[in-house]
Amino acid sequence: MENSPLDAQIDSDQMLSASFLGTPLDRAMMQRCIELARRALGRTAPNPLVGAVIVKDGQIIGEGFHPGAGNPHAEVFALREAGDLAVGATIYVNLEPCNHYGRTPPCSEALVAAGVAKVVVGMVDPDPRVSGGGIARLQQAGIEVVVGVEEEACRQLNEAFIHRILYQRPFGILKYAMTLDGKIATTTGHSAWITSPDARHIVHQLRAACDAVIVGGNTVRLDNPKLTSHQTYTHNPLRVVMSRNLDLPTDAYLWETTDAPTLVLTEANSSPYFQQMLLKKNVEVVELTPLTPTKVMEYLYQRNLLSVLWECGGTLAASAIAQAAVQKVLAFIAPKIVGGKTAPSPVGDLGLAMMTDAITLERVTWRPVGSDCMLEGYLPPLPR
Amino acid sequence: MENSPLDAQIDSDQMLSASFLGTPLDRAMMQRCIELARRALGRTAPNPLVGAVIVKDGQIIGEGFHPGAGNPHAEVFALREAGDLAVGATIYVNLEPCNHYGRTPPCSEALVAAGVAKVVVGMVDPDPRVSGGGIARLQQAGIEVVVGVEEEACRQLNEAFIHRILYQRPFGILKYAMTLDGKIATTTGHSAWITSPDARHIVHQLRAACDAVIVGGNTVRLDNPKLTSHQTYTHNPLRVVMSRNLDLPTDAYLWETTDAPTLVLTEANSSPYFQQMLLKKNVEVVELTPLTPTKVMEYLYQRNLLSVLWECGGTLAASAIAQAAVQKVLAFIAPKIVGGKTAPSPVGDLGLAMMTDAITLERVTWRPVGSDCMLEGYLPPLPR
Repeated sequence: MENSPLDAQIDSDQMLSASFLGTPLDRAMMQRCIELARRALGRTAPNPLVGAVIVKDGQIIGEGFHPGAGNPHAEVFALREAGDLAVGATIYVNLEPCNHYGRTPPCSEALVAAGVAKVVVGMVDPDPRVSGGGIARLQQAGIEVVVGVEEEACRQLNEAFIHRILYQRPFGILKYAMTLDGKIATTTGHSAWITSPDARHIVHQLRAACDAVIVGGNTVRLDNPKLTSHQTYTHNPLRVVMSRNLDLPTDAYLWETTDAPTLVLTEANSSPYFQQMLLKKNVEVVELTPLTPTKVMEYLYQRNLLSVLWECGGTLAASAIAQAAVQKVLAFIAPKIVGGKTAPSPVGDLGLAMMTDAITLERVTWRPVGSDCMLEGYLPPLPR
Repeated sequence: MENSPLDAQIDSDQMLSASFLGTPLDRAMMQRCIELARRALGRTAPNPLVGAVIVKDGQIIGEGFHPGAGNPHAEVFALREAGDLAVGATIYVNLEPCNHYGRTPPCSEALVAAGVAKVVVGMVDPDPRVSGGGIARLQQAGIEVVVGVEEEACRQLNEAFIHRILYQRPFGILKYAMTLDGKIATTTGHSAWITSPDARHIVHQLRAACDAVIVGGNTVRLDNPKLTSHQTYTHNPLRVVMSRNLDLPTDAYLWETTDAPTLVLTEANSSPYFQQMLLKKNVEVVELTPLTPTKVMEYLYQRNLLSVLWECGGTLAASAIAQAAVQKVLAFIAPKIVGGKTAPSPVGDLGLAMMTDAITLERVTWRPVGSDCMLEGYLPPLPR
């Protein structure tokens, strides 16, 4: 095996076209890595989601996933489980093994030391400064490396991590639910519920997978939301309220912080009385002036967040889009008509006068969910 | 065959459960009837769409469809083609053969005279006063009758005809296209184009299948639409403009009546000067006071129309819904975001304050069309 041909092709153009790279077993094992990685959904920030599987003679002899920052990487758990059997085995991992000393020693060295014969990698490290380094180290040690198996699925799994690395910002997702006639509430502001229980269940799962969920003061005043994942044993995101002047109700579900933490972002010189009240309830308060989506995303990047879910009304949603704080849209559309000339719609003013100037989403999928329809799509990528 | 068991079950509850009634050949032949019937889409009002197929020894020996009012019925064309071979044959027809003397003699008598052995019917006549009469006549003559093969598809084909018979009104379809954020135009009123060419092609087909398409004055002023089916050799609907005061542009595509007729509905005492101008261009003008969707549908019923397509803006759409002039909704949603707090949405004021009061559509289907999504659904049925 030492002189096996070099399968690895790190040229990114070639990898893009190699969507069916690898044997059926390779692809199944990479999907298993993704499945393992997802066990830590919402808990790894700022680290990626990584799973690893070690196979020998057609049998899985070790598995692992990265449970979150400060813990060992996925490869380490899988090697521990495989023990001495790892010699001559193949390891699958959805992200290129690291090659540097961080809080843990480099996985590339651990794989060399364990004597694995082959490493199958889903995608290279997205950081252009270190990308390919782990793979090169393995190849230098005579290990066969294959790169790009199930790459599309691997990139999707870590889309937030990739965005964070490339843009130094968390990945923003705008989520909203509207009626078939484009309303997110009635003319009086009433909005519970627009979508079916199936759609709401997906939203709860989405929250469990995100690091923070953001609303504006208006949503707190009108909806009094909980913004939790509504499930025991799952992760709850940091609940963030943006409010310039703290004109907020003194009683709100979001000020109950037993199940999930709440962070209120406000501007300097907003009500000190209200700030005191929040602090007494263990609600964190941070002043960011001016309080804009850009500032908020900068701050949440500094706080090591990977993904941020915007569950706000139309005015804040429009600002978030205009300031490139949204990369992906998840829209739920319910087959009901509520009417209302002044009833709010999901996105406020973007200053676009012509329909031909509308922002067209990319990589769009439409999916029925219960009686509703769910759209998933991406805003055009930012220049870097 | 004369003493064959009575297969026909005219009890409607039983028929509802019999969605797989008939042999595979029966179902295929009934689908063929529907295919033939659809050749006259948009041209049969006030008559139904009907196709007929005659089969003997596993071979089709005659086919026909009803081309429109004043022409022979589908069964007659099929019998003509089959000639003497019709003796002992089976005839398929999507609607119960008529049993009365109208502009043509009853088909039931023609079938008895031709000596067919068996009649397979998709659905009974929807008019409760005559329903089952044609079938009874055939059975009296010793002909085997099966009812309810592909009934759901047969009912769908003639949903407009059924509605017309049951409610003495044309069947109303509300069609609109909106962005993913619920806008049918920008804040300035610009709306061309929201959806993809694929979606617009479906709209053109839909127009060809309808008897009239209705807009309000605002749509004429803002969009200057043509409202034709944009295809040679296809039917164009009657283009109807509702305008109380005739505050309309003197130049508009709708006043060009070479390809399709235009009818302007207005109230008494609207501008005689403008009415004269329209009449000179062969645009028909009718005064209906007060000019409401209810009045308009009453009038279009009197004019023998089966189906009416509402392609209007939100204000008129809301009135049409509130006045039960809409039975079905076809909504196209484009994966683009245009924003705009005051940009118009598809349905204006319905007076609903609570989201729980929203009108929930029934029999909903979501279907991707090009990059867009198309919803088809029905408003809850009216009491009769």
